Amino acid sequence: MSATTLPTTPHYSPEYRFNVQIYYEDTDFSGVVYHPNFLKYFERAREHVIGAEILHNLWQQQQLGFAVYRTDMVCHDGVEFADIVDVRTQFYFESKFRTVWKQSIWRPNATKAAVTATIEMVCMNQKRQLAPMPPSLITQLSAGMA
Amino acid sequence: MSATTLPTTPHYSPEYRFNVQIYYEDTDFSGVVYHPNFLKYFERAREHVIGAEILHNLWQQQQLGFAVYRTDMVCHDGVEFADIVDVRTQFYFESKFRTVWKQSIWRPNATKAAVTATIEMVCMNQKRQLAPMPPSLITQLSAGMA
Amino acid sequence: MSATTLPTTPHYSPEYRFNVQIYYEDTDFSGVVYHPNFLKYFERAREHVIGAEILHNLWQQQQLGFAVYRTDMVCHDGVEFADIVDVRTQFYFESKFRTVWKQSIWRPNATKAAVTATIEMVCMNQKRQLAPMPPSLITQLSAGMA
Amino acid sequence: MSATTLPTTPHYSPEYRFNVQIYYEDTDFSGVVYHPNFLKYFERAREHVIGAEILHNLWQQQQLGFAVYRTDMVCHDGVEFADIVDVRTQFYFESKFRTVWKQSIWRPNATKAAVTATIEMVCMNQKRQLAPMPPSLITQLSAGMA
Repeated sequence: MSATTLPTTPHYSPEYRFNVQIYYEDTDFSGVVYHPNFLKYFERAREHVIGAEILHNLWQQQQLGFAVYRTDMVCHDGVEFADIVDVRTQFYFESKFRTVWKQSIWRPNATKAAVTATIEMVCMNQKRQLAPMPPSLITQLSAGMA
Repeated sequence: MSATTLPTTPHYSPEYRFNVQIYYEDTDFSGVVYHPNFLKYFERAREHVIGAEILHNLWQQQQLGFAVYRTDMVCHDGVEFADIVDVRTQFYFESKFRTVWKQSIWRPNATKAAVTATIEMVCMNQKRQLAPMPPSLITQLSAGMA
Repeated sequence: MSATTLPTTPHYSPEYRFNVQIYYEDTDFSGVVYHPNFLKYFERAREHVIGAEILHNLWQQQQLGFAVYRTDMVCHDGVEFADIVDVRTQFYFESKFRTVWKQSIWRPNATKAAVTATIEMVCMNQKRQLAPMPPSLITQLSAGMA
Repeated sequence: MSATTLPTTPHYSPEYRFNVQIYYEDTDFSGVVYHPNFLKYFERAREHVIGAEILHNLWQQQQLGFAVYRTDMVCHDGVEFADIVDVRTQFYFESKFRTVWKQSIWRPNATKAAVTATIEMVCMNQKRQLAPMPPSLITQLSAGMA
């Protein structure tokens, strides 16, 4: 896929995997992970897919960043203290402005995901106006797409 | 509405309002509220609708709690440090096990919501098994429903 | 006290009081408030003493902010879900650059504080260099000092 | 060192090292890490020294946990988004009830620590009463002490 001919049907990225260990800070008094924290793990995983240095330079040098536009998350199962969960991530470009991410959280030895989510991200400048992703970034992120 | 005859079409609660002030802790380096925090504000608002004491006693005395099953959130606009936002909340009973919450976050003097969400909550026991809400709780929460 | 003649012995501000309600987000699986959150409550209380709007304008218009230099906190007692705690705050100017805050957290009907802290704040510019507080700010914050 | 003859002068553990990557969630609008988050990183590092599984079992099987009694933290330098910091940890037993931890946070290639802290932890039962650490735990944690 090239930056100039975005597909009309989604071409998914490879599936990326990222481990998160559950600490005291992640739980609440009900004994399991406090649900907004799942959005944090999804974001950490996305930052690893894109690259924290790339995000840092994009912001500092081009005044561009990614903002979450929509998150649709389903919590199927509780996640517990001391779990090391597997965050699985795939994404596709919906337009030059928008990426869509399919992410899920798996407990150790689980046969189904504990949490699943679809998250839409848009590219914005520092005035929070929609901005196209730089072609070089699209090319870079397109590596390995089906 | 009584606990024994749950409606098949939603009967919404009155709209509740709750203020949240945005502190340092709520923002990230992009200058606006970090998106998972919106889920925190929605939960605070729900706790005020239900009553923190009621939630506390439900957990301690009946070993029951509410777990978030699904959150579908759209972020239309950034929210800034020092804002005092208005969190608006309505809900209905979908079954004896489940409530559905329509919530939104409004910046001062805004003409449209900065964030909107639909959040589904299920009642669970401390083994995280679905459990019906106690009839007395349903009656209590049904006060003022259309 | 004037901005130009800072005292060598501390002149304390009046004691300010600020309520914080403890939500799900504040606790961990041990059943009580997760300890770093106490630093959040202390900061919220300081922001109310100084004024969030004043902090906002200081940052936007004069590129100045307050950074925490040191926190020394003792946790005497656990704080629980649904508690509404009373955060008590006093401070003094140590220099044109530095304020020292004595803060404590009180559970309902408590005869002693659950948490006590001494927190030092320094004034910094956006390059994170020490900067004197503007005289007008010192005057403003000195209102009511003994 | 054995569980029955605790030393009167501190015998320090080896220095442990643990990396933490700084994400969006860690920063605030001033552009650097929000200070209470440093306490989270220190706790994560301690959990890795003790072992999350050991902490989990201690709580589930012996109803014992570690509570933070005191934290004295100095913030010398800001920590930025995308940094991978090195958290360094040493501790000693002050009594059967109490451990003292010397911890620091180092930015990449730094010649001095960005944050330093002394943190005291006490062993408690689930009623939050002081309890001695099990001898087997003390033995386990004493491995490698000078």
